[in-house]
Amino acid sequence: MNRLITLTTDFGLDDAFVGVMKGVILRINPAARIVDLNHNVGPQNVREGAFVLATAYPYFPEDTVHLAVVDPGVGTGRRPIAVATPKGLFVAPDNGLLSYVLDDMERLGGESRLHPLPSTPSPSVHAYVLTERRFWLHRISATFHGRDIFAPVAAHLSLGVPIEQLGAPIAALESFPISRPARIDAGTLIAHVVYVDRFGNLITDARLEDLPPPPVSITIRGRTIAGLSANYAEGGPLVALADSSDRLEVALRNGDAAKKLKAGVGEEVRVERIR
Amino acid sequence: MNRLITLTTDFGLDDAFVGVMKGVILRINPAARIVDLNHNVGPQNVREGAFVLATAYPYFPEDTVHLAVVDPGVGTGRRPIAVATPKGLFVAPDNGLLSYVLDDMERLGGESRLHPLPSTPSPSVHAYVLTERRFWLHRISATFHGRDIFAPVAAHLSLGVPIEQLGAPIAALESFPISRPARIDAGTLIAHVVYVDRFGNLITDARLEDLPPPPVSITIRGRTIAGLSANYAEGGPLVALADSSDRLEVALRNGDAAKKLKAGVGEEVRVERIR
Amino acid sequence: MNRLITLTTDFGLDDAFVGVMKGVILRINPAARIVDLNHNVGPQNVREGAFVLATAYPYFPEDTVHLAVVDPGVGTGRRPIAVATPKGLFVAPDNGLLSYVLDDMERLGGESRLHPLPSTPSPSVHAYVLTERRFWLHRISATFHGRDIFAPVAAHLSLGVPIEQLGAPIAALESFPISRPARIDAGTLIAHVVYVDRFGNLITDARLEDLPPPPVSITIRGRTIAGLSANYAEGGPLVALADSSDRLEVALRNGDAAKKLKAGVGEEVRVERIR
Repeated sequence: MNRLITLTTDFGLDDAFVGVMKGVILRINPAARIVDLNHNVGPQNVREGAFVLATAYPYFPEDTVHLAVVDPGVGTGRRPIAVATPKGLFVAPDNGLLSYVLDDMERLGGESRLHPLPSTPSPSVHAYVLTERRFWLHRISATFHGRDIFAPVAAHLSLGVPIEQLGAPIAALESFPISRPARIDAGTLIAHVVYVDRFGNLITDARLEDLPPPPVSITIRGRTIAGLSANYAEGGPLVALADSSDRLEVALRNGDAAKKLKAGVGEEVRVERIR
Repeated sequence: MNRLITLTTDFGLDDAFVGVMKGVILRINPAARIVDLNHNVGPQNVREGAFVLATAYPYFPEDTVHLAVVDPGVGTGRRPIAVATPKGLFVAPDNGLLSYVLDDMERLGGESRLHPLPSTPSPSVHAYVLTERRFWLHRISATFHGRDIFAPVAAHLSLGVPIEQLGAPIAALESFPISRPARIDAGTLIAHVVYVDRFGNLITDARLEDLPPPPVSITIRGRTIAGLSANYAEGGPLVALADSSDRLEVALRNGDAAKKLKAGVGEEVRVERIR
Repeated sequence: MNRLITLTTDFGLDDAFVGVMKGVILRINPAARIVDLNHNVGPQNVREGAFVLATAYPYFPEDTVHLAVVDPGVGTGRRPIAVATPKGLFVAPDNGLLSYVLDDMERLGGESRLHPLPSTPSPSVHAYVLTERRFWLHRISATFHGRDIFAPVAAHLSLGVPIEQLGAPIAALESFPISRPARIDAGTLIAHVVYVDRFGNLITDARLEDLPPPPVSITIRGRTIAGLSANYAEGGPLVALADSSDRLEVALRNGDAAKKLKAGVGEEVRVERIR
């Protein structure tokens, strides 16, 4: 068995941290296939890392090992975990980095979630705290568990080591509250920017299915956009449209909406049905 | 068959766009070998993407699949294309991103080009508009054809799917005029900066063979350089020399010529034979 | 044979230089496994490249080919070299880029080094100047030996070509003096910052074993830290601790110590035993 491994970290590309993790993986699985998802998550920004991971994992084979390390609590009591889901295996610190993934699993499973923190994994989700040191490097530093614990564990998973051998099952995981749009009435929704991409596009927490029925207007920072565009070139220059994951997105044609509007994560986006 | 795949995009490395494309490719071809050429093409800068691609593809095997996505017209009527050439296979939006590649093919084939836009592919170049949806993802977004169309098509090509199965043949492609040096007289050439690299080196549209016979002087932004150097360490600090593709380049030893001279793409570089 | 190849350069990720080197490697070894260590070494910063390489190579298999190109002297008389060690094979310009690696080998071998520049490789280290052009590209540019010489040589090494076929043995290599902490007395050590990582952590030339026995205080830029922390979360906000290679590191919890302290490479860090 040789499962794909993906990497999501806040290690950046200015040091050799990522390369070192790959070296550790390749010592254990010389034929490892490793894909970088994103190493430029904002330093210690667990929520951004969680969002990025959630936009990417659905496009990988369902036996892929997704290794995610945004880990401000490295070396403290926070638990290292491995989680099996129907859509992939995940290895990460237990600090909320899997919040969006767990939310997806709950939505897929049709379960409600009353208490978001800590969340209870759904029956098809199995979580383990990493305790079996034989799957780690021999020496464990206080500052780089990505190298010492997470990378070797991911490598062993990629070779087919059963996840239950890695540690003890646990029933609850850390999770942060997922941002949701607020429905004011049948014709009004308040969405929130949850991510700004490299182009300055503003991605919100509203999915297309959440929006009031058309025609709608979209207002952000005092600017109102009439209706959804089918693509970046239609209407504008400021446009609202469905992003590639069917989320409401505000973009500036051939420009940077975040800079132009001085808007960032948390900004409100008001969607109103035009009567 | 398992052809190499290269990726050139303006997606940057701050999001997971590139990783997602790789996931899509690896689902279709689990043994895919993927090489990143450059993901930091300026946002929507088709000409820069075209130049970068042209400097790199000649160093790859001739059956490599080069996937390029700088795509400001995504979701509009611009055509997705695949192009077979004697030097590689190319998958891209039809927006000029292959202009330099097509220019190379015409130079290789010894043909003249009277009307640069749109260009007619030479006989050894075969172009297809991508229409066969069975080689795409099932759902096509309006904003991420790199993921939904181009990546899966490149993956199928890497596995040996014949290019003519991907769509209908087309006779002309979009192309922008390639910048050329202007020959004033036998002893004088006006070149133009077409690319600035990470070191601030200024790459021009003049090839060594275009230059007047030595000795020459090179003038840019009022600064005159006497003669061509054999390498960065000879002469200087401001030097003119042949870049690694035999183009005339202006560089600052251990420094950034672009910053120092406040020069960028389009800047004139005058080359004069010293009598 | 198919040895891993790692890449360390100052080429950045804004051009296709790195991709081109991979194309050259894959033409020679179509099954090459290539890992990026770091391409964002400061332009022409040989010392930074040397440090980065030294933090990473120990985590790779001992037959890995480490290709490093930070090469301000490209095209001049500086020699291209390949070096075999018990911990890996190295291909680089002979300009000091292997200084830390050679220092490691000397420490491993228990030899003293009286004259740091040039250093004499230890008996278990074998160095060769690259002279055999049949292992290079046919045309050698003056500005991109990474593509024309180093990448093809690394590819041939990865396939098992014996290193002694690549050129003539040499007895001494260029090396710069490795920064060392200064021991003032049994209770006082002056360390120096040798590297600043992406998080702004300040890495010093002192190893844990060099420090005076606890309890100690650590002073940098007039700020005194009481004792070593076990991890980033303990004490602080400014903390001193062992980095992942057991070097003394000064960090700011959830922040950037380099910015906060306005400290960079060369800054003194005073470690004093508290009596």
